Amino acid sequence: MNKLSEEKVFRDPIHGYVRVDDSVVWQCIQTKEFQRLRRIKQLGSTSMAYHTGEHSRFAHSLGVYEIVRRMVNEVGDLKEKLTEYEKITVMLAGLLHDIGHAPFSHSFETIMHKKHEEYTVQIISQKSEIKDILDNYSPHLADDVAKVIDGSHPNGILCQMVSSQLDADRMDYLLRDSYFTGTKYGEFDLERILRTMRVADDKLAVKVSGMHTIEDYIMARYHMYWQVYFHAVSRSYDVILKNLFKRLVDLYKENPTKILDEYPMYRNLLTKEILSNEDIFDLDDSTCLYSFRLMSKGDDKILADLAMRLLTRNLFKYSNPQNSQDILSKLKEKGYDKQYYFYWDHQTQNPYTPYNGQTHSIWVLMDNGEIAELSSVSKIVSSICQNSTYQDEKIFFPKEVL
Amino acid sequence: MNKLSEEKVFRDPIHGYVRVDDSVVWQCIQTKEFQRLRRIKQLGSTSMAYHTGEHSRFAHSLGVYEIVRRMVNEVGDLKEKLTEYEKITVMLAGLLHDIGHAPFSHSFETIMHKKHEEYTVQIISQKSEIKDILDNYSPHLADDVAKVIDGSHPNGILCQMVSSQLDADRMDYLLRDSYFTGTKYGEFDLERILRTMRVADDKLAVKVSGMHTIEDYIMARYHMYWQVYFHAVSRSYDVILKNLFKRLVDLYKENPTKILDEYPMYRNLLTKEILSNEDIFDLDDSTCLYSFRLMSKGDDKILADLAMRLLTRNLFKYSNPQNSQDILSKLKEKGYDKQYYFYWDHQTQNPYTPYNGQTHSIWVLMDNGEIAELSSVSKIVSSICQNSTYQDEKIFFPKEVL
Amino acid sequence: MNKLSEEKVFRDPIHGYVRVDDSVVWQCIQTKEFQRLRRIKQLGSTSMAYHTGEHSRFAHSLGVYEIVRRMVNEVGDLKEKLTEYEKITVMLAGLLHDIGHAPFSHSFETIMHKKHEEYTVQIISQKSEIKDILDNYSPHLADDVAKVIDGSHPNGILCQMVSSQLDADRMDYLLRDSYFTGTKYGEFDLERILRTMRVADDKLAVKVSGMHTIEDYIMARYHMYWQVYFHAVSRSYDVILKNLFKRLVDLYKENPTKILDEYPMYRNLLTKEILSNEDIFDLDDSTCLYSFRLMSKGDDKILADLAMRLLTRNLFKYSNPQNSQDILSKLKEKGYDKQYYFYWDHQTQNPYTPYNGQTHSIWVLMDNGEIAELSSVSKIVSSICQNSTYQDEKIFFPKEVL
Amino acid sequence: MNKLSEEKVFRDPIHGYVRVDDSVVWQCIQTKEFQRLRRIKQLGSTSMAYHTGEHSRFAHSLGVYEIVRRMVNEVGDLKEKLTEYEKITVMLAGLLHDIGHAPFSHSFETIMHKKHEEYTVQIISQKSEIKDILDNYSPHLADDVAKVIDGSHPNGILCQMVSSQLDADRMDYLLRDSYFTGTKYGEFDLERILRTMRVADDKLAVKVSGMHTIEDYIMARYHMYWQVYFHAVSRSYDVILKNLFKRLVDLYKENPTKILDEYPMYRNLLTKEILSNEDIFDLDDSTCLYSFRLMSKGDDKILADLAMRLLTRNLFKYSNPQNSQDILSKLKEKGYDKQYYFYWDHQTQNPYTPYNGQTHSIWVLMDNGEIAELSSVSKIVSSICQNSTYQDEKIFFPKEVL
Repeated sequence: MNKLSEEKVFRDPIHGYVRVDDSVVWQCIQTKEFQRLRRIKQLGSTSMAYHTGEHSRFAHSLGVYEIVRRMVNEVGDLKEKLTEYEKITVMLAGLLHDIGHAPFSHSFETIMHKKHEEYTVQIISQKSEIKDILDNYSPHLADDVAKVIDGSHPNGILCQMVSSQLDADRMDYLLRDSYFTGTKYGEFDLERILRTMRVADDKLAVKVSGMHTIEDYIMARYHMYWQVYFHAVSRSYDVILKNLFKRLVDLYKENPTKILDEYPMYRNLLTKEILSNEDIFDLDDSTCLYSFRLMSKGDDKILADLAMRLLTRNLFKYSNPQNSQDILSKLKEKGYDKQYYFYWDHQTQNPYTPYNGQTHSIWVLMDNGEIAELSSVSKIVSSICQNSTYQDEKIFFPKEVL
Repeated sequence: MNKLSEEKVFRDPIHGYVRVDDSVVWQCIQTKEFQRLRRIKQLGSTSMAYHTGEHSRFAHSLGVYEIVRRMVNEVGDLKEKLTEYEKITVMLAGLLHDIGHAPFSHSFETIMHKKHEEYTVQIISQKSEIKDILDNYSPHLADDVAKVIDGSHPNGILCQMVSSQLDADRMDYLLRDSYFTGTKYGEFDLERILRTMRVADDKLAVKVSGMHTIEDYIMARYHMYWQVYFHAVSRSYDVILKNLFKRLVDLYKENPTKILDEYPMYRNLLTKEILSNEDIFDLDDSTCLYSFRLMSKGDDKILADLAMRLLTRNLFKYSNPQNSQDILSKLKEKGYDKQYYFYWDHQTQNPYTPYNGQTHSIWVLMDNGEIAELSSVSKIVSSICQNSTYQDEKIFFPKEVL
Repeated sequence: MNKLSEEKVFRDPIHGYVRVDDSVVWQCIQTKEFQRLRRIKQLGSTSMAYHTGEHSRFAHSLGVYEIVRRMVNEVGDLKEKLTEYEKITVMLAGLLHDIGHAPFSHSFETIMHKKHEEYTVQIISQKSEIKDILDNYSPHLADDVAKVIDGSHPNGILCQMVSSQLDADRMDYLLRDSYFTGTKYGEFDLERILRTMRVADDKLAVKVSGMHTIEDYIMARYHMYWQVYFHAVSRSYDVILKNLFKRLVDLYKENPTKILDEYPMYRNLLTKEILSNEDIFDLDDSTCLYSFRLMSKGDDKILADLAMRLLTRNLFKYSNPQNSQDILSKLKEKGYDKQYYFYWDHQTQNPYTPYNGQTHSIWVLMDNGEIAELSSVSKIVSSICQNSTYQDEKIFFPKEVL
Repeated sequence: MNKLSEEKVFRDPIHGYVRVDDSVVWQCIQTKEFQRLRRIKQLGSTSMAYHTGEHSRFAHSLGVYEIVRRMVNEVGDLKEKLTEYEKITVMLAGLLHDIGHAPFSHSFETIMHKKHEEYTVQIISQKSEIKDILDNYSPHLADDVAKVIDGSHPNGILCQMVSSQLDADRMDYLLRDSYFTGTKYGEFDLERILRTMRVADDKLAVKVSGMHTIEDYIMARYHMYWQVYFHAVSRSYDVILKNLFKRLVDLYKENPTKILDEYPMYRNLLTKEILSNEDIFDLDDSTCLYSFRLMSKGDDKILADLAMRLLTRNLFKYSNPQNSQDILSKLKEKGYDKQYYFYWDHQTQNPYTPYNGQTHSIWVLMDNGEIAELSSVSKIVSSICQNSTYQDEKIFFPKEVL
């Protein structure tokens, strides 16, 4: 009943095939909520910096599922220690972890009143095609999947698999984003990580013989952040996006009826405290892109200008924050409203966060059977952690100002 | 003046880098017309069959340009025989060959009154940002680029480079579509083709020592058609797309005002004979996807149903045409209108078309200095050509009918 | 008892990992007979044409084993229908199929009195470390493995898996030789072949939905033959090798004692009718290469010259056989002995041989459950088979002659 | 005169093609000294740990040449600032830098009285086919090439290109060893390094925008050392190799005539202070492998045992040095001579050595036009350098002891 009569597959350049043989997984993939992810680019604005990074959250979500599926089938300790129900739960959590994601990544959340993780839980827990399928499988499944995703599940191993510093989510996106952007920074040895993964002391750990592979993975993540995710072009696009939505909200406050008439796709966002699952289905990249074209023809000059910049990749320039006084006075001089034409952007990323009682650290299984926190045994990782924070500050503004 | 002060590059998984050092090329890439291609998927409906085939015509167009750029820089005969002006002309033709493309590939053309190639020429030849840039470079450039694209340029070699059976367009899309879909069928040895390319008898030819590489390329193309481009899932999506637009046009004929009000994004398409360059800028994947969501909530049941099928990948099933009587009577029985719920689809593809006085054949430069048409010297290719046409017929209909 | 306590793996660029969890397989890999394969290049003289094709028969043999292992674990029909004993038998047959191979591929067999396949059977069946291990597992195992290898095993499916037109041997070498030579011609979609493999009518078959993949595989093999295996540089090296051994045998006939003294490594080959397993252990690439250096300093001018040519890749030139009279008279004129300085080489290869009652054809499982021979259902394959034989003739001689 | 009439290429999986259009480069490749490198594995004993790492120094040397060739053609500053003669000099230095290498890497040097770098200079500077070719090109060329290789050339940039912490040698071997072993640790972005390379302050430097790529390269090197080059299996093979040659030398001291008679291939090594170029031609992997087979049948039990261990990969086990007393007493007990059956091996590797007045550091070209030493600007690199040395100690001994 629960297994498909024949395994279904999705061709995938990262994993060869994504393999599905559980009926409940297959059904979730067919839902409107999951199919929506086809219309949201995984990397949002990053495709402005790496033009081939155009893959969707749909592809990434299948990839996360596939890594979880391999964990529960290929990592001996997980295969033995997890029940069938727990395996289904964690595979679904991998598959569905991004189901509530807004278009254009985190910039869009500035006008949403909840974070995407909360919407993910909402779609799983409240009336939706997915909720029906999970309920039909087992009355507690929706709740358990949501708990794995929000990190509150009593079996911490399941949470670690889907959301920790060495989880299926990060592992898929590093490999996938590398492949599609054509950079090599995010590559690491997934096969070897899976081979050296163990359960020890009720935690997911990696054998010490695989520690170099983990170091390589940590560095891959570090490099992807600086080379790809924090690329100035991508940040510039996001800055304009944030300013555009700020302008939209400000205009709405001035004249709600006009704005709701002109931009009906943002009615729910602008008027409701919390979006319904149905409302979320209507939000994807195409919603925004279509709205940008409307805005570009609208009568508000600022909104039109910012929208056209996004459509034609006519982005802001950046400079060192020490030049901000100079830039601000030039903006004033040339008549640009600094609320919408200036942004002080601060990015920070730690290659690895050692255990502090809260985060999910990476654990290493030593030859003597004990587990140690990664930075206590890896010289490379401890070197990197001792250093002060890795950060970058830039100010963004129109190049016409100079 | 015409060269950039520093070479600009685009990271690309197929070519490593796409390299630009001509100012006119760089300027064309920045235009709104070219940036629009970021919002049109190269493979249209094929991403429903191969979910990672989500790359854009923007990426493909840069790739075609890059192959042309390498030809004029690395193929000795072209490097020597073409003037600088001809080199610029053919590189721009490669870059801009898809500039008039509609969203969702050829299905969309059913409601356009001109083919995309004609719109490409229109954008290059009539008022547009691109036209301005080309005019600024040289008064005849726009005209010459258009002629290379429509095949009427007096120097046939330039036309061959951009549009023939062995051109930069096909070479890029085979490699690119293979890479992004994660299939291997489209791979062939581009390096060796470039190395063995010569000009002989005023034609682009390949040295006989590279003939096996060409055979491999022909087969790559053949396999990509049957495995990827003509995949039943992709055709099913296209079938629904065509039926949806048919329904839209029929409804428009019944009640024009209502439809134009409800679907303002199709006003120009439905009311104008020929779209302006400005109109085309408004057409991209997001236009369609946004419209499908509007339709899915509209009051026409058929339009709503077809639109929702596209959004949720709830596609038509297919069968052998010999079952069409049976299917048609079942459709009738269950109350489906066959105009919108049935489609007889016929696909045909020849691996290679020998010279017939019209097509651009592939020419082989023999050791004695003469050129021969490919099928006259390759046993593999002649075997394949002798065979009757390669074709496939399928009927499509909702699975609920069965 | 028969399973290793922990799976052992070999990192492999083609298969990711070669995985071993049967103790008998692991033990066979540790034998002196199997370790000898590390010292025999898979491609012999081909590394003179493609200089990075330097991988060993050891790597290939592990690869063949891995493909067989995946077949018996991943192809549902094989997993169910074969007994554990049959699975072990066929995996070992894959692993050991080349165990009797001489150095430098088939050229070396000119001075051996048995073909390498016979020596393979001899090593498995007569006193050897391998024989001991197989006997220890089961009294009939050595015999059964040998029968799978020589094609006489009653279960024809096992023979098909290891030696047919679509077997693990060919599949591994195409992928491996492509990867290591850096050509792309041999690539095909192994994953999809494994996914579409079935057992029907007591034969290994491929579902019709995988037929394009098989066509691609057939073409891959065809191209690898002409582009890689039959490369003129490789044939030229082999021609000199054959002529050198011919010279050695002729000198031995004149003065056996002298030759055996000078070239002790060839004592057994020159004096015995059949080599012992111990003798074969002494034969590998290093034996030949070391002997060539001795020969290059020996007092026979012809042997010295031919040997030095091999060591320094100073190979023969080739020409069309129609020039043979001319070449032969020039050889005579310049004092070259045509027995050792001339060779008429004829290569022939059929992309695919349809069923003729003897060969193992490729079978396609049709949608109606019946099986059909590949060329009867594939237009591409039948086109290619109808054509007359694919062949090439060349004469080889020293370039100093011209 | 100096350019080939047509560019020659070598297919290469790392670089696509290795391209040669200088006659003097082509001629050097054809020499017996360069062709010898085909018979020496790049990774020596490492192929015992990674069985597909079987590529030769020939392939690596061509790769180093190709990277140097690209530097002088693609890095604008080098293209402009170096003379044609300097370009030829440095390309040849890249090509020939390993020409004096012994088989089996550094283990073999234990019985040579000179380091391989000195033999490289000897072959270039004293009578050899290579010397003749270089002399024929220009009277000072041999001397200049040798100076680039030994680091004494007055133009330090040339030395940096071939031998520094960011040189063509390391760049090729990391990529090549990764590819052939099937690991991913050694991959880094060569294209971007070439793109960001500049000459500043008479040094080769990398623009600060490429600094992350350099960090990635440093980590790649670090990981390759620990995961591949210092793999315990490889070190175990080397340990036996060293002990075997120690035994050979000890036996030779006892009875020179007997040993020279039995192992004629080591006559020069055992009797001469310095090998001639002719002697070096006779030393390659096949010399050693053939000698091991002779030794395995010889009457010295220790030599025979050690040789057979090498031939059958029956290697020593390793343990923590703190167990050495225990192991040594067990060896004594079981009658093993600790001189040949025990080895204390100490490996150390620094990911990067900051400038100390002697080493060739890596220089970063800052936005203000000044250059800075890498560890002063990269947090990651400085973190790693601050740490104490990265090292590993192991003792090796036969597993039969336990």
